[in-house]
Amino acid sequence: MLKLKRIAIDTYRDNVAFLARKCRHYRPEEFQALKKIEIMNDHHHLLASLLVVDDDQIVGPDELGLSEQAFRRIGLVEGTTVSIAPAEPPESVEFLRNKIHGHTLDSGQIRGIITDIANYRYSEREIAAFLVSCAGFMTTSEMLSLTSAMAEVGTQLHWDAPVVVDKHCIGGIPGNRTSMIIVPIVAAHGLTIPKTSSRAITSPAGTADTMEVLANVDLSLPEMRRVVEECKGCVVWGGHVNLSPADDILISVERPLAIDTREQMVASILSKKLAAGSTHLLIDLPIGPSAKVRGHADAMRLRKLFEYVGDQVGLAIDVTVTDGEQPIGNGIGPVLEARDVMAVLRREPDAPRDLREKSLRMAGMLLESDPALRGGAGYARAQEILDSGAALEKMEQIIEAQGKAATAACVGELTQDVLAPCDGSVTAIDCYRLARLARLAGAPMDKGAGIDLFKKIGDVVSEGEPLYRIHACFKSDYKFAVNFAGEGSGYRIGGSA
Amino acid sequence: MLKLKRIAIDTYRDNVAFLARKCRHYRPEEFQALKKIEIMNDHHHLLASLLVVDDDQIVGPDELGLSEQAFRRIGLVEGTTVSIAPAEPPESVEFLRNKIHGHTLDSGQIRGIITDIANYRYSEREIAAFLVSCAGFMTTSEMLSLTSAMAEVGTQLHWDAPVVVDKHCIGGIPGNRTSMIIVPIVAAHGLTIPKTSSRAITSPAGTADTMEVLANVDLSLPEMRRVVEECKGCVVWGGHVNLSPADDILISVERPLAIDTREQMVASILSKKLAAGSTHLLIDLPIGPSAKVRGHADAMRLRKLFEYVGDQVGLAIDVTVTDGEQPIGNGIGPVLEARDVMAVLRREPDAPRDLREKSLRMAGMLLESDPALRGGAGYARAQEILDSGAALEKMEQIIEAQGKAATAACVGELTQDVLAPCDGSVTAIDCYRLARLARLAGAPMDKGAGIDLFKKIGDVVSEGEPLYRIHACFKSDYKFAVNFAGEGSGYRIGGSA
Repeated sequence: MLKLKRIAIDTYRDNVAFLARKCRHYRPEEFQALKKIEIMNDHHHLLASLLVVDDDQIVGPDELGLSEQAFRRIGLVEGTTVSIAPAEPPESVEFLRNKIHGHTLDSGQIRGIITDIANYRYSEREIAAFLVSCAGFMTTSEMLSLTSAMAEVGTQLHWDAPVVVDKHCIGGIPGNRTSMIIVPIVAAHGLTIPKTSSRAITSPAGTADTMEVLANVDLSLPEMRRVVEECKGCVVWGGHVNLSPADDILISVERPLAIDTREQMVASILSKKLAAGSTHLLIDLPIGPSAKVRGHADAMRLRKLFEYVGDQVGLAIDVTVTDGEQPIGNGIGPVLEARDVMAVLRREPDAPRDLREKSLRMAGMLLESDPALRGGAGYARAQEILDSGAALEKMEQIIEAQGKAATAACVGELTQDVLAPCDGSVTAIDCYRLARLARLAGAPMDKGAGIDLFKKIGDVVSEGEPLYRIHACFKSDYKFAVNFAGEGSGYRIGGSA
Repeated sequence: MLKLKRIAIDTYRDNVAFLARKCRHYRPEEFQALKKIEIMNDHHHLLASLLVVDDDQIVGPDELGLSEQAFRRIGLVEGTTVSIAPAEPPESVEFLRNKIHGHTLDSGQIRGIITDIANYRYSEREIAAFLVSCAGFMTTSEMLSLTSAMAEVGTQLHWDAPVVVDKHCIGGIPGNRTSMIIVPIVAAHGLTIPKTSSRAITSPAGTADTMEVLANVDLSLPEMRRVVEECKGCVVWGGHVNLSPADDILISVERPLAIDTREQMVASILSKKLAAGSTHLLIDLPIGPSAKVRGHADAMRLRKLFEYVGDQVGLAIDVTVTDGEQPIGNGIGPVLEARDVMAVLRREPDAPRDLREKSLRMAGMLLESDPALRGGAGYARAQEILDSGAALEKMEQIIEAQGKAATAACVGELTQDVLAPCDGSVTAIDCYRLARLARLAGAPMDKGAGIDLFKKIGDVVSEGEPLYRIHACFKSDYKFAVNFAGEGSGYRIGGSA
């Protein structure tokens, strides 16, 4: 009845359809703006939100417009004939209502909700309602159902290897780029480690942002498979692989609402790793006054929850509680962090010791999932691989296989040193404030922007000595960052030297 | 920096802005699709959701497009120069987060949230999160704060009268059009009763839809004032008067989620009545197996909550628990209900007795808020006004003052009688099913569509005798309705006659 038209409007995650108010084929009252409609022809159908248009130039009376995303998703050419109908609310909304009113859901109901979310059948308000109704009100069996359902909706990878290892850090510590050292060590040993990483959302760099300084990370699933077959490991952006797509959608709604319950975090992480086909998972759980987890009691509760769900879903989980008091390595921001990683792999004398040690320790723990390795021998084996140059060689192989970065990104040229206000020693570093500062300087969008730390906790400083250097690529960012650092450096200097 | 352009796209309640991806004045990465932006010039500013456009025909690189609603709200002419910035999340989102995590909010925090909602600063997901976090988790002091905040944000009416009465039905009973009889009786007595009503959202007719069959109900606030000064009463649509605008926004989100807590209901109703300047309020609370309130215990809890909040906010409240077992009157749908109302006012012999009796009883209760009237004398006075013809005269005066409907709407001409399947007597009528049926037939959009009941509970019927008649205006609706009635009439016939 209506002819499909592509409308060059980017509506991000949402499917949006455009219908002329003077449409010849439907009564406009049935199709109020913002309502969901279903678009169909013989073999395709799509749900979209409707906008009503009063301009023939945009959509004529015989046309149905679709935004870029919706047009791509329906997979039909312009001019194809389609019909529309008001969309019924997805069936699982009934379960959502029950959850809102305090009922416990069974696994089929949770799977129904997650399937509908992954298929774009939920509005933002329904997703928010689901998240809030779960926040603090999930039974352990609901949590298990949620984890499995999220893992099973979307791509599920299978690897031709008995042991598939992975690591994950719950985040919050700037510069903590251990993955880029662990992956080459573990892969050089011969274990399969197909690492997908995220880009930064609220931090100054995600592993994908930092790896991108060195190599292409936008790999399709077949490309990623080829790299892993060739190299045993990879470090790619997870965005093209569609692992646990419901999780991405939930995160996009929960982040602005700052809903960060333990249950959501565990289900989110484990669903992605399950879908990725991992058998062994090491979780880095940093504790510190400005980290995500601030005390040992919280860390213990979180560890137990990871272990419990891991056991139930058949994933061997090790949780390592690490020092999250200060940034790891010296650089904060993609280029500066990539520099630290390569310095460790190249065994440069001034490579950050903390980044090297933490990476070796975690790589060692992962290596011990190799049945052939003697208990306790992991660390020494990791060290051997790193110090022999095998890890560097593996990293270069992975970079080559993913595709070397076309241009070498440089560190931001607008710089400002932040100086110690007095003699003393560094007693505390505010991770949260430094992350904010690096973002203001332009990271991760400007790869060369960020902070280079010269002093860490315990270091002795003299008045006027630089604590760190701000790097920015653009004047406006530079000004913002310098002003912000002027209001507080994020360093505490105590006692006298 | 950017020139304003009106884009003829109807985005209903949402403000939407359109920016070219090739925009010359801003870095596009800062302005991702769906993010909120602030649009400013010297004296105006507006928040809107952003869509990114890749078509110069829609928005050029020097332009900022605004949807119909946004364009109207910013109140500037096309071509005006404006600047944009990413919108900071409203401050009150911090309080929302606290509420999600289980904290109790104080009145200032609730006022902050409500003010931001009324000013379109909340996204759908934030509104949903607020509603779900309140559902079942509100202290009485939070409820009071919510009621007052909603009443105070938006228009607040003041009337030059010591007693201003109003009535409200919590809904769920088809045909229950008592307001259109009560208003003329009370106004004819001399009390001020400035009634604003809603249009149907999920029911086959709201009072505004039914009154519209007879008179214009789309009055501006000054027009409404003039009618009330002239007639003491009015029956207008509340949509132009902007009473408790936050409530309208909350309702638009809570309805599809079916969040219907007592607390939300009481805050919603009382905030509107407070804002309308009422001093005395009568609440009609129907109980029945297919009504909103199903038992006396629930009704009692709801009554106490109304009374408690009413006392605290200074509104004299009477709650009358009424019979909600079956529809009131015979017609369901605007034209049919208006017919019943006029039959009662005209004292026609076949006017529905139940509608007359209920209206007289409630009008009597309202009349007793007149200090000059003796306790217990209300009903008789209401009857006197109705039977003398004074109420009819007042109704005609009100219709004249609001503006008589231009054309007389007729009852739908496609009809089908639904017949009794056996001899017996009517033992139950499913209000919910009949409401659904009337909507399928086209009500309230098609004013003449609906149902005309011939039998009520207790009536004796013979097999094949008509129970009710379906009226529709369009063939497709007619078919839908007839099929639906075929699956179940909504009537239960018991025993044998």
